[in-house]
Amino acid sequence: MQAALMYGAGDVRIETVAQPVIQEPTDAIVRITAACICGSDLWPYGSKPATAEGARMGHEFVGIVEELGTAVTGLSVGDFVIAPFVTSCGVCDFCREGLQTSCRVGGRWGGTHDGGQGQFARVPHASGTLVRVPAGFDETLIPSLLSLSDVMSTGYHAAKKAGIRPGQAVTVIGDGAVGLSAVIAAKLMGASRIILMGRHKSRTDLGREFGATDVVAERGAEGAAKVRELTDGDGTPVVLEAVGLKDALVTAAAVVRDGGVISRVGAPQFADVPLGFPEFLRNITLTGGVAPARAYIEELLPLVLDGTINPGRVFDRTTDLAGVPDGYQAMAGRQALKVLVKPQP
Amino acid sequence: MQAALMYGAGDVRIETVAQPVIQEPTDAIVRITAACICGSDLWPYGSKPATAEGARMGHEFVGIVEELGTAVTGLSVGDFVIAPFVTSCGVCDFCREGLQTSCRVGGRWGGTHDGGQGQFARVPHASGTLVRVPAGFDETLIPSLLSLSDVMSTGYHAAKKAGIRPGQAVTVIGDGAVGLSAVIAAKLMGASRIILMGRHKSRTDLGREFGATDVVAERGAEGAAKVRELTDGDGTPVVLEAVGLKDALVTAAAVVRDGGVISRVGAPQFADVPLGFPEFLRNITLTGGVAPARAYIEELLPLVLDGTINPGRVFDRTTDLAGVPDGYQAMAGRQALKVLVKPQP
Repeated sequence: MQAALMYGAGDVRIETVAQPVIQEPTDAIVRITAACICGSDLWPYGSKPATAEGARMGHEFVGIVEELGTAVTGLSVGDFVIAPFVTSCGVCDFCREGLQTSCRVGGRWGGTHDGGQGQFARVPHASGTLVRVPAGFDETLIPSLLSLSDVMSTGYHAAKKAGIRPGQAVTVIGDGAVGLSAVIAAKLMGASRIILMGRHKSRTDLGREFGATDVVAERGAEGAAKVRELTDGDGTPVVLEAVGLKDALVTAAAVVRDGGVISRVGAPQFADVPLGFPEFLRNITLTGGVAPARAYIEELLPLVLDGTINPGRVFDRTTDLAGVPDGYQAMAGRQALKVLVKPQP
Repeated sequence: MQAALMYGAGDVRIETVAQPVIQEPTDAIVRITAACICGSDLWPYGSKPATAEGARMGHEFVGIVEELGTAVTGLSVGDFVIAPFVTSCGVCDFCREGLQTSCRVGGRWGGTHDGGQGQFARVPHASGTLVRVPAGFDETLIPSLLSLSDVMSTGYHAAKKAGIRPGQAVTVIGDGAVGLSAVIAAKLMGASRIILMGRHKSRTDLGREFGATDVVAERGAEGAAKVRELTDGDGTPVVLEAVGLKDALVTAAAVVRDGGVISRVGAPQFADVPLGFPEFLRNITLTGGVAPARAYIEELLPLVLDGTINPGRVFDRTTDLAGVPDGYQAMAGRQALKVLVKPQP
């Protein structure tokens, strides 16, 4: 089969790799019908040292169950399934608590394991990992179902960890696919005002359609001043940070109201969080983290199926596997917001 | 009247200062009957540059209302009152939300204002700031009532912001007066296990009496390993940090369970919090901050009056005003845990 491998910064290749087979009785083999390139894939795409062995890529996909190990329950061959961006057993204490990203036996896609950017994947702990979509759904919903793998669930995690209450004002920092998904999530949780900080007009326009009431295109101190101006000088009690750079957290601290919450879902590209004595005096909480998408897919799935939310609109480009290297380039160059990959011929 | 002033590191003097008078109709004058030296006073005591003008000190006191401005309501001359460690109006949005430390007009004690380490104090926004204690209480409770000014309320803030649920395991870092108060608070909120990290046996012994079930005397990586050993390798879902040094937060991150909460009430002596990518992957929340003591005094007062909690036991030395400079030295040298000051002759 064909799959994408990254050999170093800017170097993604499509190659023939081994067809996956069942290795453990808890495995499933899934034929991938749609996958993505992720904003987080752009970090290694920008900085990964060159390697002789390529790393398999992609951690978001949907597809059809091809084969099941003997111990898999709750799934049948032919099921349409959503794969969250980490695998999880479904039975350990962390999985039962809804923190499947800390599953005691789960793991990540890609690297030496199969990734989403390929034609098939072996799915470990298939009963715990995969979520079955009831048959008969409208296939135009596939982009939105696919977004539950990561970006929509990640935006929702930001909102949930922040504990948004109906009527609250929320600032969302970042107009990437996760930031826009966070707008959807904030609206879903009843935010009365959603200030979206982002400077790409086509993206912030989509953000407005998703529920943003205000857009601030300025960045840094200027952007923060604008948000404070919009909020009588106070900032908002909730800030959802969907970038992952230290500057974004500095902005978050500058626009959060005293006693408020910064919920971060941008993978931090830095070791220390700039929350010192001033933020201590202002009782600022920092929450968030990597999203246990598996915990949210069952909750969000009915909202996708009935059309309440349409997060699949974040995909603005579709490609086959051969187009994946160009897709990385387009996302890195901000010509594409999020690329949907159709790996089957 | 007499009061304590700090002129620089290690330089505290008792001097004659102006007797306070009513300046605003919302002021009260309080005759201070008991006050404290605070662990946070030790930061300037260790590092303040020498100055020609001394700064008034002390931000925790109880006393008797001597005089009231014409606009003060809810208080009478002769009332016994507790003063929280910041002043607050009681009517602005932050005060109504219970975040009186962010009051729009409130302020701090000391500096060029009166402090607690003196015989009298002018109390701005007296109606909002002071809490009246019903007459007829047992005077042996005064140390515990005094602790509500700061340390007990601060320990309680740590526990409340962490949202401790009955049955949870909690680690408390620091065996100072705030750490020990945090133990009381954790027990009050139903923690089933309270691991106290501290290396001063007399303090951790008191911590055990307050409810600590385990004591870890080791520090740093060794101490963290011990806590993890006590908790099947996982750490505890709640960590209350009552030190304020960066190392304590590193320890907090090392002993908090995935998905858990670090609630900090140690005033941070550093700008950046060491919560980077590993803690992001583990979904660690950082909360806490300076405690709005005013929000908790009314809640904790009945528990002091009926003997449910006895936080006044943190005081292990009593002095008159003349003994305050020695009191600073004793606390800095860890010969005293917390010093109670009786400023009236």
